[in-house]
Amino acid sequence: MARIVQKFGGTSVASVGCIRKAAEIAVKAAKEGHEVATVVSAMGQTTDELISLAEEITSSPNARELDMLLSTGEQQTIALMSMAIQELGWQARSFTGGQAGIYTENQYGKAKIREIQPQGIESSFNRGEIPVVAGFQGVTQANEVTTLGRGGSDTTAVALASVLGAERCDIYTDVSGVFTADPRLFSQAKKLPCLSYEEMLELAATGAQVINHHSVGLAMDSQMPVRIRSTFQPDDLGTLITNRITAPEYPICGITLDVNQAWFNIRMFSVDEREKQQRLDSISSLFTRLNELNISSDMVMLLAHEDEPFQDLAFTVEKANAKRVQSILKGIRNLGDPQFVVDEHLARVSIIGRRLTHRPEIVASVFEALTQREIPIQMVATGDLRMSLLVPVPHAEKAVTLIHNYFGLEEEPQSFVSVL
Amino acid sequence: MARIVQKFGGTSVASVGCIRKAAEIAVKAAKEGHEVATVVSAMGQTTDELISLAEEITSSPNARELDMLLSTGEQQTIALMSMAIQELGWQARSFTGGQAGIYTENQYGKAKIREIQPQGIESSFNRGEIPVVAGFQGVTQANEVTTLGRGGSDTTAVALASVLGAERCDIYTDVSGVFTADPRLFSQAKKLPCLSYEEMLELAATGAQVINHHSVGLAMDSQMPVRIRSTFQPDDLGTLITNRITAPEYPICGITLDVNQAWFNIRMFSVDEREKQQRLDSISSLFTRLNELNISSDMVMLLAHEDEPFQDLAFTVEKANAKRVQSILKGIRNLGDPQFVVDEHLARVSIIGRRLTHRPEIVASVFEALTQREIPIQMVATGDLRMSLLVPVPHAEKAVTLIHNYFGLEEEPQSFVSVL
Repeated sequence: MARIVQKFGGTSVASVGCIRKAAEIAVKAAKEGHEVATVVSAMGQTTDELISLAEEITSSPNARELDMLLSTGEQQTIALMSMAIQELGWQARSFTGGQAGIYTENQYGKAKIREIQPQGIESSFNRGEIPVVAGFQGVTQANEVTTLGRGGSDTTAVALASVLGAERCDIYTDVSGVFTADPRLFSQAKKLPCLSYEEMLELAATGAQVINHHSVGLAMDSQMPVRIRSTFQPDDLGTLITNRITAPEYPICGITLDVNQAWFNIRMFSVDEREKQQRLDSISSLFTRLNELNISSDMVMLLAHEDEPFQDLAFTVEKANAKRVQSILKGIRNLGDPQFVVDEHLARVSIIGRRLTHRPEIVASVFEALTQREIPIQMVATGDLRMSLLVPVPHAEKAVTLIHNYFGLEEEPQSFVSVL
Repeated sequence: MARIVQKFGGTSVASVGCIRKAAEIAVKAAKEGHEVATVVSAMGQTTDELISLAEEITSSPNARELDMLLSTGEQQTIALMSMAIQELGWQARSFTGGQAGIYTENQYGKAKIREIQPQGIESSFNRGEIPVVAGFQGVTQANEVTTLGRGGSDTTAVALASVLGAERCDIYTDVSGVFTADPRLFSQAKKLPCLSYEEMLELAATGAQVINHHSVGLAMDSQMPVRIRSTFQPDDLGTLITNRITAPEYPICGITLDVNQAWFNIRMFSVDEREKQQRLDSISSLFTRLNELNISSDMVMLLAHEDEPFQDLAFTVEKANAKRVQSILKGIRNLGDPQFVVDEHLARVSIIGRRLTHRPEIVASVFEALTQREIPIQMVATGDLRMSLLVPVPHAEKAVTLIHNYFGLEEEPQSFVSVL
């Protein structure tokens, strides 16, 4: 008998029919002798509909009131899910975030979980019930309702699994696992039986939408095995994310594509060391400001040219932030006045795998795959777990397919060994 | 400066547009210097839609889970209403039942309020906010969410007004007050400027749907003046329900009509005193059983005939309960075997006024009004505040009109004097 936390996302509880399927999955595991706790999201588009209602009233809804409003979505699902489990003849009990003992910091809209007091859930287990917990929400010490931000139900599930000492956290969604590339775009993409937290983090950070990347980080910190699987193919074991994998022999684990990046390139002229130092101070100001505004940058690269009187600073940000970054640049002395280029027509292709910096043949292979077919590469950044390239958007899907085939990812992976 | 509780029902918050109107009413009163607390219902048909969702899952939803589900309706409204008030430039703060300190007994679906701890609301007043409280809901001491049953938002408003020592509780709805007859059916009906709790209780119990009758009883117990008024005609003062009225000179205050009653008449033969006693025991069993099943009876009448060997027992129940009453009768010895008649084609017309038993001319006038036009009367029951008649359904509306005209209720009432 194991203790398992099962999380069902919005598409998995989008209708009464879906909720029934989710309830069947939970009851099946309970009948097999497991202690099962479930975490549920709001039904389908509920959260977006509630946000629209608020926006009809005001363009700047009060953060406390918005959380009060949005938290009703998950509260509806926990009640309906509990009823569905009871209808299958098993005991269930719903828990709002507050009732589940999920305490957050005093921040609305994107509160972090500070502590979980799981006594209520433990009592529920002791009574033989399936506790059904509202994801995405908690309360402050003063009993104010807070939400954890988008993707927060994944975080609730992983944090709860960790506090409950669960053997595993199963994330049920509308896809059957993690793939070597987005299966909606690339039909050759293959499902991975398992991969490490680090690889999943990079996949999630660069475009894989299957799980919220904060919750992967949380799972890694608490070494909680997470299984991504489909509500609609419950017999499929999906993809297991864990560190307890021995000797994966695959060259890379997946390729992601992000067409929502804007690329900045700033050419900074400086004739002497003093000027060079001023430029560096300006760059520091830039990233401090980006951090203050919570704007993430990626593929940051600074390149000095030995024979030339200039340095190049390049990086990408999400397209949605491009305008703000332009005005920041204009406001920083020594950065706004030189030339800078913004290109919003480049796609970021990322190759995720382990210890890439120790495997130069991977980088060589990627270049070879693309240059053979004359796909231009604007920029490359390489880290230990990821190699990202910027290519023109019209070439992007072709680039993914070429790299995917070059590494033979379309073949069924066979070499995974998992201890779970 | 007064303290006022304003309650906005489902039709008053049915859309974002309606919520905005309600917010304007609250802010206007606050700007006039009053301390205003609002109590809101779920938007329009939300509660019915949530019940339908639950019924899609199970024919017998768990009571705890149903309350967990239904309470989200009011929680959505408090958030949206608070945003709407803030958008008008005033401070507001939403309170779930639990946050408002509304503690109920441990019963789901129709919990009674046990205690209100209003410190949170008082602090909100002190900060200059308009507290916005979810009607219809509370929590148990163990922090379980409960609902108060249909019409429960009226009860929340009156109970809160009483605990807060409010000067008045304004019930905003989609009609502009209490009328001498149902204005949707009788165009001559006139709005009453004010009436007593007792009269309102009888009007509500016999068919007037403008306010939940439990909350009228609560208002009477705490002597809380209640004003029924329209969200859509906020300048209309509506109808004030209070005991502080001097000398109303109207003969009767209103006429209600209920076509959902079923009439039972049981003829019980008994030749000697012993048999008569057995019959009375059986009648006692009948009403004990009705009480156990929470079936209300009305117009109960027992009539012995001096020269005849039988007694007649007559009463009405709601049509929805008629089948259950028939099987109860068949199960009680001495009641099932004699003949009994069930008639579901009679309408109950009720005339509400004060001290009717001391004013035989009222009863005489009613009879005169109906017999002049040959409307048959099946049965009459008279109390101090109400006289009810059963007439055939096809004659019912005509009967109301005749009595209404006979008492001159279509004329503007002028003789009310209220101290508020």
